[in-house]
Amino acid sequence: MSVAVILYHRGMSRWQPDARGRLQLAAMELYVERGFEQTTVVDIAERAGLTERTFFRHFADKREVLFLGQDELQELFVSTIAQAPDDAAPLEAVAAALQAVATEFEPRRRWSQERQRVINANPGLQERELIKLAGLSSAIAATLRDRGVDEPAASLTAESGISVFHIAFQRWIAADNTREFSQLITQSLAALKVVTAGG
Amino acid sequence: MSVAVILYHRGMSRWQPDARGRLQLAAMELYVERGFEQTTVVDIAERAGLTERTFFRHFADKREVLFLGQDELQELFVSTIAQAPDDAAPLEAVAAALQAVATEFEPRRRWSQERQRVINANPGLQERELIKLAGLSSAIAATLRDRGVDEPAASLTAESGISVFHIAFQRWIAADNTREFSQLITQSLAALKVVTAGG
Repeated sequence: MSVAVILYHRGMSRWQPDARGRLQLAAMELYVERGFEQTTVVDIAERAGLTERTFFRHFADKREVLFLGQDELQELFVSTIAQAPDDAAPLEAVAAALQAVATEFEPRRRWSQERQRVINANPGLQERELIKLAGLSSAIAATLRDRGVDEPAASLTAESGISVFHIAFQRWIAADNTREFSQLITQSLAALKVVTAGG
Repeated sequence: MSVAVILYHRGMSRWQPDARGRLQLAAMELYVERGFEQTTVVDIAERAGLTERTFFRHFADKREVLFLGQDELQELFVSTIAQAPDDAAPLEAVAAALQAVATEFEPRRRWSQERQRVINANPGLQERELIKLAGLSSAIAATLRDRGVDEPAASLTAESGISVFHIAFQRWIAADNTREFSQLITQSLAALKVVTAGG
C-alpha cells in the first residue's frame, strides 16, 4: 500500500498532484460516497478530470486502486527480516519488520480507515485482501527459511506476525483509538507471548 | 467438512450410498479428473446417476460440494472450547478443540488431499477457503470472549489456533507424511510456543 498511499498524500498536499494520485483520491472519494460496486472507472476518471484511458495506464481495474503498493509492503517486510542481525530470533526479525511497516502506515490512518470501510463492505475485496495476506505470510516464511529457520517454525512465525499485524491494524484504525500503530504492535506481540505461554 | 466427508465415506463403503453421498463422490472424481472449472453440475449428476434437480436439492452450486460440513466443523471448534474446564487457559481450550477436529479428520486423509488439490488449482476456491477460515477464527475469538478472555488475547489465541490448524493440516496431507494429524497438531503447538517465547 505504501507507494499508493504516498502518492495519495502527495496528491492532497501539492497544488497539482500527478495523474495517479488524482485517480486514487477520486476513486477513494467515490468508493466512500457511493460504494465500490456503484462506482465505475468512467466516474473515477471524470472526478479526477482525466480520461478513462489514463486510468487504465495506471491501474488494471478499479480494485487495483485499493491494492497498489502491496508489493512494496511485502518488500519492506522481507527486506527488514532479511537484514535483521544473524542472531535475532525469528520473531524478533518479524517484530522489526512489523515496526518498520507501522512507521510507514502511521501518517495514513485516515486513508487506512476509508480503505478498510470499502473493503469490509465488499466480500470480493475481502477475499482479495485475505489472499494478499496469505501471500505475504508465505513470503515471510520463505525469508525466514533463508535465514536458516526450519519448518514448521518459519511458517508459524510468519503466521503469528500476520496475526499481530492484522489485529494491531484493526485496533489502530478503530474510531476511538488514540494510540500509535507501533505501540499497538508492541502490545499485540506482548499479548501473543502471554497467550502462547499460557496454553 | 465433517458431515460431507462422513457421507462420502459411507458412500464408498455401502452398496448404495444416499444421493448426497453419491453426488459428492461423483463431484470429487470429476474435479480430480477434469478440474473444477471444466466440470458442470450436469456432469456430476450424470456420473452419480441422478438428475440435476436432485443435485440442486442438496447443494446450492458445485462449489458447495467442497464446503459442505464447514458449519459442523465450526460447531465442533466452538462447542469444544465452550466446554473446556473453567480454569483452562485460552490456548488450552483451543488446543482441545484442535485435537477434537484432528480426530474427526483422521480417517479422511485421502478426501482431504483431493479436496486441497482441487482448491489449490482454483483461486476462487482458495479465496473462499480463506474467508471460511477467517470466519472460523472470529467464531473462536467470540467463544473465548464469552469465557471471559479479553482482547486482543481472544483474537490472538484464535488466530494462533487457526495457524496451527492450517500448518498441521498441510503437513498431514503431504504425500510423504506418515504421522497422525493429532501428533502434528501437538508438534505445531509446541513449535508455536518456542517461536513466540524466542522473539
